[in-house]
Amino acid sequence: MSFERPNIEKMQGYAPGEQRDGSQVIKLNTNENPYPASPQVEAALRAIQIESLRRYPPPLANTFRTVAAKLHGVATENIIPTNGGDELLRLLLTTYVDTDETIVISQPSYSLYPVLAEIRGCKLLEIPLRDDWAMPDDFLDSLLKSNAKMCILVNPHAPTGALLTDEYLAQLAAGFAGILVIDEAYVDFVDPGLAYDAVPLVKAFDNVLILRSLSKGYSLAGLRFGYGVGATSLLDPMLYKTRDSYNTDTVSQHLAIAALESVAYARDTWAKVRESRTSLSKALNELGLATSPSQTNFVLCQVPKSIGAQPLYLALKERNILVRHFDQHRLQDALRISIGSDSENGALLEAIQQIIGS
Amino acid sequence: MSFERPNIEKMQGYAPGEQRDGSQVIKLNTNENPYPASPQVEAALRAIQIESLRRYPPPLANTFRTVAAKLHGVATENIIPTNGGDELLRLLLTTYVDTDETIVISQPSYSLYPVLAEIRGCKLLEIPLRDDWAMPDDFLDSLLKSNAKMCILVNPHAPTGALLTDEYLAQLAAGFAGILVIDEAYVDFVDPGLAYDAVPLVKAFDNVLILRSLSKGYSLAGLRFGYGVGATSLLDPMLYKTRDSYNTDTVSQHLAIAALESVAYARDTWAKVRESRTSLSKALNELGLATSPSQTNFVLCQVPKSIGAQPLYLALKERNILVRHFDQHRLQDALRISIGSDSENGALLEAIQQIIGS
Repeated sequence: MSFERPNIEKMQGYAPGEQRDGSQVIKLNTNENPYPASPQVEAALRAIQIESLRRYPPPLANTFRTVAAKLHGVATENIIPTNGGDELLRLLLTTYVDTDETIVISQPSYSLYPVLAEIRGCKLLEIPLRDDWAMPDDFLDSLLKSNAKMCILVNPHAPTGALLTDEYLAQLAAGFAGILVIDEAYVDFVDPGLAYDAVPLVKAFDNVLILRSLSKGYSLAGLRFGYGVGATSLLDPMLYKTRDSYNTDTVSQHLAIAALESVAYARDTWAKVRESRTSLSKALNELGLATSPSQTNFVLCQVPKSIGAQPLYLALKERNILVRHFDQHRLQDALRISIGSDSENGALLEAIQQIIGS
Repeated sequence: MSFERPNIEKMQGYAPGEQRDGSQVIKLNTNENPYPASPQVEAALRAIQIESLRRYPPPLANTFRTVAAKLHGVATENIIPTNGGDELLRLLLTTYVDTDETIVISQPSYSLYPVLAEIRGCKLLEIPLRDDWAMPDDFLDSLLKSNAKMCILVNPHAPTGALLTDEYLAQLAAGFAGILVIDEAYVDFVDPGLAYDAVPLVKAFDNVLILRSLSKGYSLAGLRFGYGVGATSLLDPMLYKTRDSYNTDTVSQHLAIAALESVAYARDTWAKVRESRTSLSKALNELGLATSPSQTNFVLCQVPKSIGAQPLYLALKERNILVRHFDQHRLQDALRISIGSDSENGALLEAIQQIIGS
């Protein structure tokens, strides 16, 4: 017999990108950073005493909060640390969205959002992006009409890499009566020349929460550490009521602190990824695979029907190169490719060339 | 303005035991193991390469599952790894208990259970223990009458330390149509002479789930690692649908594997804790503080009204000795004291002696 709640019973779970072991594998399917975390993070790992692990972690990770607050120019109280960014998304739904309420997302976007809505049992409105992946002109109108409790936008966008400006987000925040969640999992890879900065929004608006992750920008996907930046009225219920009591552990707290304190090192990896993004996009375009302009550490490329995205994905996988193909509406003809190291990107391009025979 | 869901707005959060830093502090308030984790765990920590952390962890922690399955004589599929035992409790409510359904617990017990019920927004039935903290004779009757979806029992019991037999739990499992969760956070400290073993129940009954934690038994509270043992029909919806995609991280997976593989070392710490439990209980009784028989790594002692549990708690705290006082029904006159090292227990007894002037 099944004990599941009805909406759990009928739902499908989230399918994470394949994690395959082996030094032979070129892994460009889950947007990991190709460069390791900083020497300061390594030193923090080496400094951990086993003795310290027999005690529970600082429940609120206050030292991390202070360091993150300083980095963003906000108060310690405006930071909530979480077990990866995904935990923050789940906490937001748990805390704020009732089963008769609606969350709004764009379509396509991060495929975890609909899964979280199904788990919560709330309503989901997916507003389609335009054909060029830009936001539709009437997005705010649709949002207001939906009477939604929450809107989650990933910015820069996954899986297209497109960036909304902070001015545009400010308009949404000002017009929308619900909570605007800006999922900035990939924000570290935005061109600094664009001067994008959404942090002032959390000071100006009580209904804006920014999600950050250490997984990509700080090369710590294995650690599970993310955080939110927002008004205390938004963070406190999650910090003091709905969060698991010890949601981040001692080791990850120490390493996350070291990562933010050595942000200069991380910035160098971001610059390298941006350079590779430019050259990889150009090379893919020359092979006939058109890429959308990306402000992330991945590119979405369209695969001509004569080649086929799914066949290309499989042919690359046979050669031990993993990229991501989403078998879902509007993405069947595309592949999402994480920016790897120069040699990984080179091997990818060579393999594509061989496969398509160009 | 507040965006909280109504039941979140009106609830109070869980209050974790104080985590205070400083080598001067004798910390006997959160049931941590006084001995550090095994040398094999330390070696596993030292072997972690920063390079490995840039990738996401194995999402299902399959290597850990295999090791845990071997330890318990079950199949890999019968193990679910979680970010501490608390995550498993939350997942159980998320997955199985609807807002019009009831969970049953004993009163008193782990104070997180009512908090999780409030977050979920489901109903909670607390069945009072007898005056001697034993289960009431009509517990199963009350459980059946409640028509509950789930019953969570902590065994051995917190905060009293009492142990229910596996025969008794088998009777409950056989009679109850809902899910019986046996929270064995403290099971490692049970006297082996009692031959308590609930694992056969998960093979015999599809509605039984055992929760285990590495926090106390393996001296890894700082790591946040727990797991469930149960039928695949109970575990699969949590593994593949409701769990955060990467709920346990790379470091904790490696250390948890090493901990279970060096269980012989941990068993030595359990034996030492049991010895100290006997001597500490005896000494507390001689000071006029009656303790309940405990099969855990803590003792609950009654403090005579002439002394007062709250004043004794505060006087100990002034001396940098932390114990736990629960300001709740039936526990006002008691203190829960974690078993420390010999020197910590000695310092505690000396301080109590000074305070009560005996």
